[in-house]
Amino acid sequence: MAGPPSTYPRRLLPLFLGLFQAALLLFFALFVTYDEPSAQEKDSSLVANQVYSTFPFFQDIQVMLVVGLGLLLTFLPRYGFSSLTHNFLLLNFSMQWALVLQGLLHHFHHGQIHLDLHKLLISEFAAVTVLISVGAILGRASPCQLLVMATCEIPLYLASEWVIVTCLGVLDVGGTITIHIFSCYFGLGVSKALFRATQQPLHPKEAPTPSSDLKSLVGTLILWVFWPSFVAVLCQPGDAQHRAILNTLLAMSASATTTVVASSLLERDGKLSPGHLQNGSLAGGVAIGVVADMAVPPVAALALGSLSAVVCVLGFRFLTPLLGRKLTLHDQCGIHNLHGLPGILGAAASVLAVLVASKDTSGSHPSQLSPVGGNASEALEGQRGRGGAGGQALWQAAGLAVAVGASLLAGLLTGAALRLPCLARPPERLCFDDSLYFKIRDQAESPGPDGSAEEGALALKEQV
Amino acid sequence: MAGPPSTYPRRLLPLFLGLFQAALLLFFALFVTYDEPSAQEKDSSLVANQVYSTFPFFQDIQVMLVVGLGLLLTFLPRYGFSSLTHNFLLLNFSMQWALVLQGLLHHFHHGQIHLDLHKLLISEFAAVTVLISVGAILGRASPCQLLVMATCEIPLYLASEWVIVTCLGVLDVGGTITIHIFSCYFGLGVSKALFRATQQPLHPKEAPTPSSDLKSLVGTLILWVFWPSFVAVLCQPGDAQHRAILNTLLAMSASATTTVVASSLLERDGKLSPGHLQNGSLAGGVAIGVVADMAVPPVAALALGSLSAVVCVLGFRFLTPLLGRKLTLHDQCGIHNLHGLPGILGAAASVLAVLVASKDTSGSHPSQLSPVGGNASEALEGQRGRGGAGGQALWQAAGLAVAVGASLLAGLLTGAALRLPCLARPPERLCFDDSLYFKIRDQAESPGPDGSAEEGALALKEQV
Amino acid sequence: MAGPPSTYPRRLLPLFLGLFQAALLLFFALFVTYDEPSAQEKDSSLVANQVYSTFPFFQDIQVMLVVGLGLLLTFLPRYGFSSLTHNFLLLNFSMQWALVLQGLLHHFHHGQIHLDLHKLLISEFAAVTVLISVGAILGRASPCQLLVMATCEIPLYLASEWVIVTCLGVLDVGGTITIHIFSCYFGLGVSKALFRATQQPLHPKEAPTPSSDLKSLVGTLILWVFWPSFVAVLCQPGDAQHRAILNTLLAMSASATTTVVASSLLERDGKLSPGHLQNGSLAGGVAIGVVADMAVPPVAALALGSLSAVVCVLGFRFLTPLLGRKLTLHDQCGIHNLHGLPGILGAAASVLAVLVASKDTSGSHPSQLSPVGGNASEALEGQRGRGGAGGQALWQAAGLAVAVGASLLAGLLTGAALRLPCLARPPERLCFDDSLYFKIRDQAESPGPDGSAEEGALALKEQV
Repeated sequence: MAGPPSTYPRRLLPLFLGLFQAALLLFFALFVTYDEPSAQEKDSSLVANQVYSTFPFFQDIQVMLVVGLGLLLTFLPRYGFSSLTHNFLLLNFSMQWALVLQGLLHHFHHGQIHLDLHKLLISEFAAVTVLISVGAILGRASPCQLLVMATCEIPLYLASEWVIVTCLGVLDVGGTITIHIFSCYFGLGVSKALFRATQQPLHPKEAPTPSSDLKSLVGTLILWVFWPSFVAVLCQPGDAQHRAILNTLLAMSASATTTVVASSLLERDGKLSPGHLQNGSLAGGVAIGVVADMAVPPVAALALGSLSAVVCVLGFRFLTPLLGRKLTLHDQCGIHNLHGLPGILGAAASVLAVLVASKDTSGSHPSQLSPVGGNASEALEGQRGRGGAGGQALWQAAGLAVAVGASLLAGLLTGAALRLPCLARPPERLCFDDSLYFKIRDQAESPGPDGSAEEGALALKEQV
Repeated sequence: MAGPPSTYPRRLLPLFLGLFQAALLLFFALFVTYDEPSAQEKDSSLVANQVYSTFPFFQDIQVMLVVGLGLLLTFLPRYGFSSLTHNFLLLNFSMQWALVLQGLLHHFHHGQIHLDLHKLLISEFAAVTVLISVGAILGRASPCQLLVMATCEIPLYLASEWVIVTCLGVLDVGGTITIHIFSCYFGLGVSKALFRATQQPLHPKEAPTPSSDLKSLVGTLILWVFWPSFVAVLCQPGDAQHRAILNTLLAMSASATTTVVASSLLERDGKLSPGHLQNGSLAGGVAIGVVADMAVPPVAALALGSLSAVVCVLGFRFLTPLLGRKLTLHDQCGIHNLHGLPGILGAAASVLAVLVASKDTSGSHPSQLSPVGGNASEALEGQRGRGGAGGQALWQAAGLAVAVGASLLAGLLTGAALRLPCLARPPERLCFDDSLYFKIRDQAESPGPDGSAEEGALALKEQV
Repeated sequence: MAGPPSTYPRRLLPLFLGLFQAALLLFFALFVTYDEPSAQEKDSSLVANQVYSTFPFFQDIQVMLVVGLGLLLTFLPRYGFSSLTHNFLLLNFSMQWALVLQGLLHHFHHGQIHLDLHKLLISEFAAVTVLISVGAILGRASPCQLLVMATCEIPLYLASEWVIVTCLGVLDVGGTITIHIFSCYFGLGVSKALFRATQQPLHPKEAPTPSSDLKSLVGTLILWVFWPSFVAVLCQPGDAQHRAILNTLLAMSASATTTVVASSLLERDGKLSPGHLQNGSLAGGVAIGVVADMAVPPVAALALGSLSAVVCVLGFRFLTPLLGRKLTLHDQCGIHNLHGLPGILGAAASVLAVLVASKDTSGSHPSQLSPVGGNASEALEGQRGRGGAGGQALWQAAGLAVAVGASLLAGLLTGAALRLPCLARPPERLCFDDSLYFKIRDQAESPGPDGSAEEGALALKEQV
């Protein structure tokens, strides 16, 4: 960094984060304790079983979010360190904040909040929404802005999730509606309100290099491998979980192959676009979440995976440029193509699946319905009082509408708040550059006599 | 890509893959369903147990194939994106194709195929053979050729596996004979028939850079860590699986240290070769597969691991150049050194192990044999009718012979098919370059004013 | 490497390692066997349960050590391949050596050593100490020196661990005192004795590049994700293990956020230092180990995580430069900041936790104490005879003192041994360079006409 960006208020980040840490400690000291130890031997083995059945899934999800998603975001060649670190910081901050809010909102029994692995998992899911939403404004927002965004998004997500799942009774085991759709439109709302009508010019540091594209693809592959754990962790053990795993594996496999077909057909010279591969391969995982534990046949999972990949690639090719031109909507990572469109597809599929399941079983013995299995079937049966499976289809659609509407509105308001002058959006010429936030040798600095090849080359270029 | 490679038929890949996806959907729609849900609570917990005992292994194997093997293949510095993507595409395509074939061949009961995690695992194993074979021709074959190769290899593998395991009763829990040896000689056959007698000149883009060597080593380490899951997943739970894990850990640990010794002794200046480390460290895992669950003492696992590493390094140092000169046999990744030679060593060890096990127990009470445990012991006892342990030793040798012979023949035929003009082998000067298949900024293109250091440097070089 | 470093004795490494391999084989052949197979079906399912409950943790730890720690050490831009390989080699060598020593020392019953997964795990823990200690002298020591260091450190660690855990009865489930503190001061002792009073000048190849900093951060993130498995693997299943996992997750989350605060406040321009992030995020995991399964409230885990991050960052900012100036103590990776200071903090916390636990339960019914749960509570109760919880607090402090004293002394002696002329410390100008040990194209060599951009650039620079 040659010029001194002295106006950038660097003390805001530690101030904000430090105060939050202090408040977190206070809250935990006053209210949070561990679950009472199990009184008997039998319970102890029960806890052990819970650890063995949940913890591996939990670790898989941590790998996805910390390593996989972090690497996926390093496609900006000079912003890789920032992408990884901001993603990691936001995950931890959001999880802690969600723990506090959940404690306050739901678990305030007898003045004590009993912490367990399941509550951490739920908080982690809340944090995922922030990590997705950030994709819309990646590289152009300061860490302070991202933290404020997380501060607003977590309570709004918890409220929306409560309305959708608890009030409307929407079935969504993999978070397609509650997590992916909510976070996508929240992020787009923030982006719209933050950048308003200014067309974002293509920044010269935005273009991926072969090396950054490769790292990003590794991130995609890590996400791809562990995605079934994300979808299945909250399923009822047994058939429902088994089916959720299989459905997710099939959908993601179909996504991977179909992305190659779609990308190859859409590009004029038949070359595949790295961006399509990095995102399209995951689209099936987004879409399948909402129907993963339902009694859909395997072919439905395959078809949903293929379709999601197609809409994702089409979105990158046509919709994102269109939205950029017509609505001046800026979507840095294309979250609308990876989370929005496949999410809507998945929600539509869930409406269909519920309707078909009700037809299949109309007039037949109730036990026929049991294939739905797990929490999906039980919830479905619970819904009977609310109008049968036809009614449930309506609720699924209502859930989609609520998620889109609430998140867009919440995102627009949050984005407006991020324009507060004190939050210090970085100037355009310093965007997409690690050296604004980190003590990393800027690639344009003059190197010493033994500087690395890269730096020597650039320095030389500048001297010529 | 400066010149327009207009002759390269870019529509073939989406056409072929698209048609296959359509056929796959049709097949699944007509014939495939999930396992009937378990009728009772008890069964549900049984399914849950199966999920918890198989799924973590399955995920480990996915990480190995998608991330580990993918990264291992990125040692070609300008072909990393292609290596990762083609590996990923072939895995998915081959798994889907194996699912279809297995459904048709083996599981066609009552017109319905019941899909479960175990069947997906078996298909994944079939796909592994393709991923290994490709190593022989990596960088010089088009994606279409690779897909056609996979299309041929999967049914031939399934047939060979059926002959070796079901007909001959060969014991091979870790796939040493059925997977590693088969895929190695298949790949070499393809390479021979595809390139014929033309000596492949050393392509200037073939030489690894420090950065690509590092990525490849990370891939090796990921494979190394998860290899025990690959070997042990199909073992009988309990003693046999425990022993398979321990044997694999010991063999791979011995391989890692012995590779350093062997490489250091064989290179004139005592410097270690990255290629030796990337491959030799895994050789023990290849060899141990066939005896992993047998009652071999720990020292045998260590010795086998050490020996495999030695033959692997010797192969790279002497055999590969020799085969290249004498037989004009091209083996890009050295699959013969990693999969062929250690595989043969493992097969020989299994002959020995079966013979020794029979001697140890001759005249003693049958229960003495139970240490062999798991499926190995049961299968071994099942073989008694076919000539005792001595007979079993013969069958092991026969399995090796069948695997080598069948795969070489099948590979030669497949390689001949890949020479069909319509399959578009890329011209030599465009080999080993991502920009032939992907919209990746070619490293030789002139960069803009803010292009990355690398590109700036090269552009500068060309202007000078 | 252009000039022939002919004085470097390259045959020593294969000689030493080869002889060790031969001795290992002999030892295993004579003394080591697998556990007797379980006599009954019931036992077989017991073994299976052990495999499913231990093996996933074991794999997580392998990923941490082989991939995570390996990548963390690649922050030296031209030494990445060496860091990864030496780390991998030392892990395997040390584990094998620990297996031998443990066999000789502890498990010599009936002339036979029964190997199982648990013994491999214990050996892996012993190997961890070597991998940590090496951090103090990374880049300036030859592989031979590192192997000799491992040869000395493993028996000294086993002895120290036996004194601390078995004789003193120190509670330390996550290895804070026995592993982290021991290995840190051992490494510092080696460094002091090896480099003596010579101030190590800043080597031009020491400075990280953006690319090497990114790789190193990925290593940190992998370690961060899997750390709970490292702490919890040896806990009593059930409540204690559940609590250990939760405590570790909380501590590491607090470390991650607090590191950002501390690093931002301490650097003059408010930019974060990559080194702080790479180490501070893990400090909580080091500190929490010793109290992870005790009945500490969640807020204590959070506070310990935050404090560890603060002392770690403070150590990097002030203590390491101070020690370098005043004591000419060289600590390449800052292991004192990541393992020493947080380790001491954790040990102090364990003293406090034991004291508080005793106060909470004084006068109350003994069953109240059961929250401590697992091995911690049982051991604690076992200590009653030795002076109650107050006594246990003293033992914890004694354990800390023993670990620091013994390791420093042992390290100084080992470091003196490493100065033996035959062990060939590399000359200063060849330090931090892969090309001394590996056949890797030196980045300063003149490239061919198609050399990579990096090399072309550098070659050009040299011609200008």
